[in-house]
Amino acid sequence: MKELVFGHQNPDTDAIVAAKAYSYLQNKLGKDTEAVALGEPNEETKFVLAHFDEPAPRVIESAKAEVEAVMLVDHNEAQQSVADIKDVTVTNVIDHHRIANFETAGPLYYHAEPVGCSSTIVYKEFASNGVEIPAKLAGLMLSAIISDTLLFKSPTTTADDIEIGKKLAAIAGVDYETYGLEMLKAGTNLAAKTEAELIEADAKSFEMGGLTVRIDQVNTVDLEDVFSREAAFRAAIEAENKAQGYDLFLLMATNILDSNTRLLVVGEGQDKVEAAFGVKLVDGKADLPGVVSRKKQVVPPLQAAFD
Amino acid sequence: MKELVFGHQNPDTDAIVAAKAYSYLQNKLGKDTEAVALGEPNEETKFVLAHFDEPAPRVIESAKAEVEAVMLVDHNEAQQSVADIKDVTVTNVIDHHRIANFETAGPLYYHAEPVGCSSTIVYKEFASNGVEIPAKLAGLMLSAIISDTLLFKSPTTTADDIEIGKKLAAIAGVDYETYGLEMLKAGTNLAAKTEAELIEADAKSFEMGGLTVRIDQVNTVDLEDVFSREAAFRAAIEAENKAQGYDLFLLMATNILDSNTRLLVVGEGQDKVEAAFGVKLVDGKADLPGVVSRKKQVVPPLQAAFD
Repeated sequence: MKELVFGHQNPDTDAIVAAKAYSYLQNKLGKDTEAVALGEPNEETKFVLAHFDEPAPRVIESAKAEVEAVMLVDHNEAQQSVADIKDVTVTNVIDHHRIANFETAGPLYYHAEPVGCSSTIVYKEFASNGVEIPAKLAGLMLSAIISDTLLFKSPTTTADDIEIGKKLAAIAGVDYETYGLEMLKAGTNLAAKTEAELIEADAKSFEMGGLTVRIDQVNTVDLEDVFSREAAFRAAIEAENKAQGYDLFLLMATNILDSNTRLLVVGEGQDKVEAAFGVKLVDGKADLPGVVSRKKQVVPPLQAAFD
Repeated sequence: MKELVFGHQNPDTDAIVAAKAYSYLQNKLGKDTEAVALGEPNEETKFVLAHFDEPAPRVIESAKAEVEAVMLVDHNEAQQSVADIKDVTVTNVIDHHRIANFETAGPLYYHAEPVGCSSTIVYKEFASNGVEIPAKLAGLMLSAIISDTLLFKSPTTTADDIEIGKKLAAIAGVDYETYGLEMLKAGTNLAAKTEAELIEADAKSFEMGGLTVRIDQVNTVDLEDVFSREAAFRAAIEAENKAQGYDLFLLMATNILDSNTRLLVVGEGQDKVEAAFGVKLVDGKADLPGVVSRKKQVVPPLQAAFD
């Protein structure tokens, strides 16, 4: 019985690559799976797919229309998944995030580790099953690790990510430092996008203290590039909060060169944001030095402030 | 920083053994952990511990009083865990059940597989970490697999359970067929216990359709042995439902020799039970031929009937 494999909405490089890699592995193990995506590739992922001459995955809106069962990578929370996730059976999950708003009726295969990237865990699945990784797929998985760890500089980076990243670079025959910088810069071409596109491109929703909190991250090599457009960002976020029913929106503008983030916060619960990060918001803005990871440095303290 | 490792409330052999085995592994890997339990060993587990000359684990009532972080084996649902589970951080989970009512603030290590026994998964953790299993621990882990799979006869049994069970038997130097039957019979000494003890000994709680559903399993080699005490069981369950606020109670009396279960159902939602199993309850009773697994054959259809 065919299963679909996919990452979260607003897919980043890991969401798309981990699905491709895990689907490849499952098919080698005798399953019938197809890697799909819950949205179009972003600029960075487009660069990665083009570099390794790999097609973008098919985008789906519904799972139930095609299959009874699915495999999730790089997420588990229902609000980050396909709209009709509750109507299908989740048989496998490969993830590196917290577990929340996730429930199954029966037992399943779930492999999560607190590492920097889902593709690092997928590599371990290849290893424990004794399946070889083709060079092209290794290049894609390396790209996902570089993307999620900002070339091993994010605090989410673990020894496993670095070790496995280097092994994948060797299999792919890629100089990961040169390629990695090129790839990350390809993902920061903000000028080509509208504010409405940018606040949606890498956004995820969270339920906290009864509020729907939306957190988007925009990578840049110059924060002024982002904040010269502040008024337009604010207007786009206000419209989006209204249209989608988000109570609180955090835009993380992250400078990938010096690993600092500036927050732009719109909506209710700003006191929780201040408490979470020990900062004073001025015009809804605050600098968070050394913060680059939504998962590790933003979601946990914010969740704690709401609890 | 020390962590406690434990299985579910009303521990069965797997809950106690998997905690001991996983704690041993974690300590070999450099962590500081202690295997504890959320209750006293049952008759079967006492037999197992005595057979391999292993002490019973210390019983805890609270985790927060001792540690900041814990590792769970053989369960994840909060209502099956230590009372103050929400006050500590769960860093690791090894389980073979559905995931429900489980939420973390940050990423964690989670390894679940749809196999018959948590100890089967713990064996894989030893293997992937290259750590040897001592003979005594192998005997304990084999016992957990025999217990959970009813000597490989339960439909929850997978090829992995059988293969790993046999490997553990070889390490332990145990004839698993002879030992297994002796062990299972040791667990069915019902005459030594009151009805109040028996309806609590292997009981778990589930939230279904807004009701608290309690499901207990009693293994026997003769169903008449159990149902000669029906009136007393019924009275004990009614008292327990009232005292603990359970809405619906299912007592599964399972004949481990011929793999059949007779249900005794007390409380509201009996129509859901009938719908779940396609049976008519007569005086709150029904035979479920071929049913031996709460996890695989009782919880999923009952959950589906409530949804």
